[in-house]
Amino acid sequence: MNDQKSDNITRVEHRIPTPEREKRNKHKGGVLWFTGLSGAGKSTLAFALEEELFKRGYQVYVLDGDNVRYGLNSDLGFSPEDRTENIRRVGEMAALFADAGIICLSAFISPYREDRQMARKAAGDKFHEIYVKADVATCEERDPKGLYAKARAGEIKEFTGVSAPYEEPERAEVVVDTSFAPVDSCVVKALDYIQAHLLIP
Amino acid sequence: MNDQKSDNITRVEHRIPTPEREKRNKHKGGVLWFTGLSGAGKSTLAFALEEELFKRGYQVYVLDGDNVRYGLNSDLGFSPEDRTENIRRVGEMAALFADAGIICLSAFISPYREDRQMARKAAGDKFHEIYVKADVATCEERDPKGLYAKARAGEIKEFTGVSAPYEEPERAEVVVDTSFAPVDSCVVKALDYIQAHLLIP
Repeated sequence: MNDQKSDNITRVEHRIPTPEREKRNKHKGGVLWFTGLSGAGKSTLAFALEEELFKRGYQVYVLDGDNVRYGLNSDLGFSPEDRTENIRRVGEMAALFADAGIICLSAFISPYREDRQMARKAAGDKFHEIYVKADVATCEERDPKGLYAKARAGEIKEFTGVSAPYEEPERAEVVVDTSFAPVDSCVVKALDYIQAHLLIP
Repeated sequence: MNDQKSDNITRVEHRIPTPEREKRNKHKGGVLWFTGLSGAGKSTLAFALEEELFKRGYQVYVLDGDNVRYGLNSDLGFSPEDRTENIRRVGEMAALFADAGIICLSAFISPYREDRQMARKAAGDKFHEIYVKADVATCEERDPKGLYAKARAGEIKEFTGVSAPYEEPERAEVVVDTSFAPVDSCVVKALDYIQAHLLIP
């Protein structure tokens, strides 16, 4: 009797295969990794894209500072070590969202190339890097949260682009330059990429 | 021109409201938190339930040791502090899955009441605790991974139920006793709960 229960206990231990989830959702899971300076427009693009994808019936979710920095990564600051750990955890979490069949839009400065490489490794071929390009001068002029002003005044230390480095992607799958192109056209470019690479006909 | 771009940059920053996701999915997002001893059947139940829910068209995903311990929480061991941090992170991640409209089945021993309370707090009213009950003797007899034998031989330290405590839930939303009930009936019980509480008619 116990043996029989034991048999019951082990017989069903398998996961829903990702292709089955994808077939159901009519698109692949994936991590779209938005990287770029503060003020470059990562979150803006991610949210605009989420809205467009949702309208089209995709399963989609944005990870950004707002829902990660106060929760999962509330124990981390902005030192190089903590930034690395921040990105490591987001990369692992995003990979699980992708494994669940979701298109996970991840919007973090993620200034270090090696950290982004780690996130890519976690999600494997489901990882797609989107470089949200804008020069420091443009971002500083926008300064939507007043962070550049504070960084220049020395009130924020280790601020990317001012007092901490940003390592540009070398082989991003998509590059959008928000200094020149309006947001809508950047969204369209990212959307085209997703429909070409993640849509299941 | 720059001002106009700046306006573009901020105009679309909002998330898809969770009710819209839920309406689309025809069910609420949620965290179903399976707690219990090693060998009690948490993963077995979670996977069986995932399969049943998937068949019925739900968006559902299992978080367990296999996809969390080697990724997000690969830096953590089994000391009381690390167990707490393990559960804290899983709780925060599961809450984001629920926010994304997914039913997240989380299968971890999670022996400390306070840690589970923390996970509940992260997900708010989307949290549902399922106590997978089985006494140590039953779990030890099953010992599907040979862990109890190793714990008794002193090869594993701080093993829940042998050399580390398990604090039983006091007010779990669902209790299933796998010492007495066959797996199928435990699945049915959990399924009934989900259909009563998470299904949107």
